[in-house]
Amino acid sequence: LMPMVTYFFLIVTTYAFLGTFLFAWATRDQVVAEHRTAHILTAVISAIAGLSYFLIQGYYHDLLVELGTLPSPDDRRTLIRESYSAINQYRYMDWAVTTPLLLVKMVLMLRLSWREQKRPLTILLLADFFMILTGFIGEQQLSFGNEIQVGPKLIWGAVSTVGYVLVLLTLYRLWQQFAGRVQPRERWAYRLMALTTVTFWGVYPIGYILTVFDIDLNWIHIAFSVADLINKAGVGLVAYVASTGELK
Amino acid sequence: LMPMVTYFFLIVTTYAFLGTFLFAWATRDQVVAEHRTAHILTAVISAIAGLSYFLIQGYYHDLLVELGTLPSPDDRRTLIRESYSAINQYRYMDWAVTTPLLLVKMVLMLRLSWREQKRPLTILLLADFFMILTGFIGEQQLSFGNEIQVGPKLIWGAVSTVGYVLVLLTLYRLWQQFAGRVQPRERWAYRLMALTTVTFWGVYPIGYILTVFDIDLNWIHIAFSVADLINKAGVGLVAYVASTGELK
Amino acid sequence: LMPMVTYFFLIVTTYAFLGTFLFAWATRDQVVAEHRTAHILTAVISAIAGLSYFLIQGYYHDLLVELGTLPSPDDRRTLIRESYSAINQYRYMDWAVTTPLLLVKMVLMLRLSWREQKRPLTILLLADFFMILTGFIGEQQLSFGNEIQVGPKLIWGAVSTVGYVLVLLTLYRLWQQFAGRVQPRERWAYRLMALTTVTFWGVYPIGYILTVFDIDLNWIHIAFSVADLINKAGVGLVAYVASTGELK
Ligand SMILES: CC1=C(/C=C/C(C)=C/C=C/C(C)=C/C=O)C(C)(C)CCC1
Ligand SMILES: CC1=C(/C=C/C(C)=C/C=C/C(C)=C/C=O)C(C)(C)CCC1
Ligand SMILES: CC1=C(/C=C/C(C)=C/C=C/C(C)=C/C=O)C(C)(C)CCC1
Repeated sequence: LMPMVTYFFLIVTTYAFLGTFLFAWATRDQVVAEHRTAHILTAVISAIAGLSYFLIQGYYHDLLVELGTLPSPDDRRTLIRESYSAINQYRYMDWAVTTPLLLVKMVLMLRLSWREQKRPLTILLLADFFMILTGFIGEQQLSFGNEIQVGPKLIWGAVSTVGYVLVLLTLYRLWQQFAGRVQPRERWAYRLMALTTVTFWGVYPIGYILTVFDIDLNWIHIAFSVADLINKAGVGLVAYVASTGELK
Repeated sequence: LMPMVTYFFLIVTTYAFLGTFLFAWATRDQVVAEHRTAHILTAVISAIAGLSYFLIQGYYHDLLVELGTLPSPDDRRTLIRESYSAINQYRYMDWAVTTPLLLVKMVLMLRLSWREQKRPLTILLLADFFMILTGFIGEQQLSFGNEIQVGPKLIWGAVSTVGYVLVLLTLYRLWQQFAGRVQPRERWAYRLMALTTVTFWGVYPIGYILTVFDIDLNWIHIAFSVADLINKAGVGLVAYVASTGELK
Repeated sequence: LMPMVTYFFLIVTTYAFLGTFLFAWATRDQVVAEHRTAHILTAVISAIAGLSYFLIQGYYHDLLVELGTLPSPDDRRTLIRESYSAINQYRYMDWAVTTPLLLVKMVLMLRLSWREQKRPLTILLLADFFMILTGFIGEQQLSFGNEIQVGPKLIWGAVSTVGYVLVLLTLYRLWQQFAGRVQPRERWAYRLMALTTVTFWGVYPIGYILTVFDIDLNWIHIAFSVADLINKAGVGLVAYVASTGELK
């Protein structure tokens, strides 16, 4: 049953991103000029995420077919474990492109001048890149038999967390410095978006750690799908609400 | 023959949704500003439904190929029965995303203020989610040999119906409260759209019950395809007609 | 590991081009009228490159699956070497269309009159075509056993370089003649774009020469992916910044 439910979530997530993309695209003229770039980023992020989930569900579909041919539960577990690695690769590809765009979108909400945002943006993007890169290396810490090597994986995870914390700190400092200047709606949106980086971005490191334990990896797929929807489509909706003409 | 006709319907439905999507997309500037969001929802819903039918017809195509290799009518029936389950999964994935959007679209037709619509919208979306979720659980009540377990399936169906009835009641209460305030065209559109939830949405629970009997499941595929077209493309057309500039 | 990382880069590049395409497309009204054509060229170039990388990653995916079935390292190397040729074909198809568009885009930045740009443009396009064509012929210099024939390959490479140098010279002459006339922002953008033809276009001939040596060809895939992103998406961004209303 679990594999079926996971497949269900993967496809639903694909649909939801397709929907978000089309919606953001079609409403780009309803958004005030200052926030148009951010709104288009929502469309871009959703399109990439939609394609990523489309590839993932295709992969998972093949997995399901193969699962059906394996009689022994042991073989099935091994297959799920190996395919987990493969699917995770797709996630990192997605993250490599979409997380920087998400951060840019958040900073844009504060309408800073080019000079003000140059430094914090550079820090954010470098820290984010560092986080994804070292996390990706950590995921590759597999022994010959495709077993996770717990020690190295956790060490790389800790290294990656340094980048993550730096992202959080930079967003917080921006909030302290500039939040007072913008409209209440924009302040609300920035806060909500920045908070997701503490809360729902936190789902990914937790999933990373959980792979070390002996749990059904499908739970992680489901949790990541939901977190992705919140972090990309949800945040996009928040930005949209803060950027429509009615509200300003 | 029946499988061929079913395949025919699946592909025609795919095309029809593609057409609806493109039409709604291209006409988005012809719609008065107040109803633009609803109109874009039609495009989004059609795109998702189109993709969903595209996946379904692909699945069905593989089924047809396999059917051709099975000489015994008994094997063929088993294959159709099992594939019915699989295709149904795709339908639920679609419903999980599109039914809430359909309900939002109906409510938008009444042009309520944010405060007025917050509560009924929340109820609608929760009831709808409950309906789809419990219905989905009901579909999974299969015995080891992939036979439907009639008792549990019907009980879950009854539970699901509670959500369905709540949706109908909420839409009816909205009609009583607010229909008087909007333009005649909008009243007409809301009524028609809300009525489909009683009539053509009813096709799905009937199909759900019929699976328990020994009928050719292809009939259900065909009925669902037609109902989907009415509930998504048809309703989209009604909303379009009520929202064009000429009419207001 | 290397094949996995290469696959990673191919997909990320696909996503990035999809993103660039959508972004350029959606922002086409934010660009001053004089530079709109150039901006749309960015969208066109990104769309073509995105499709090209989508095909390449699909090919590479099949390659990875096949690699998994080959136990001997020797067989694996042969497979990678042969597939390198095939993937390279996709790259030349892309270059045949996108490099002339890139050159046109650069020239457009100088806002020359039709008479002024006719001659240099003709030279640029012919030299570029000559470069790609002879380079393509060079890549086909394979012996019966699919081994690269070093001598002929390098001779054709040298011939191709004639075209390349002619492109560089023409761009330089244009800079000397006309750069003084345009706005500082445009001068900056033209210079940056023309410089990439010396620097990051240079990655391709280097990769061409490296195939002659016994290195892991995946490095070349990765280098080409990064260079493509800089030469197409990066240059597109530079042109965008120089063409937005705020800056002029
Ligand atoms: C800290 C940390 C990680 C953080 C990952 C994050 C924060 C990913 C965010 C993804 C998003 C926001 C996706 C878009 O929806 C890794 C790489 C798992 C490795 C372990 C340590
Ligand atoms: C009441 C009930 C059901 C209702 C399903 C409905 C009402 C689906 C509507 C789908 C639509 C509108 C699709 C879009 O075109 C289920 C889940 C079959 C389970 C049995 C009980
Ligand atoms: C000089 C030379 C070459 C030059 C290729 C170039 C300059 C390609 C540029 C491609 C671009 C800019 C792609 C878009 O991003 C070849 C054909 C490898 C053959 C060897 C000699």
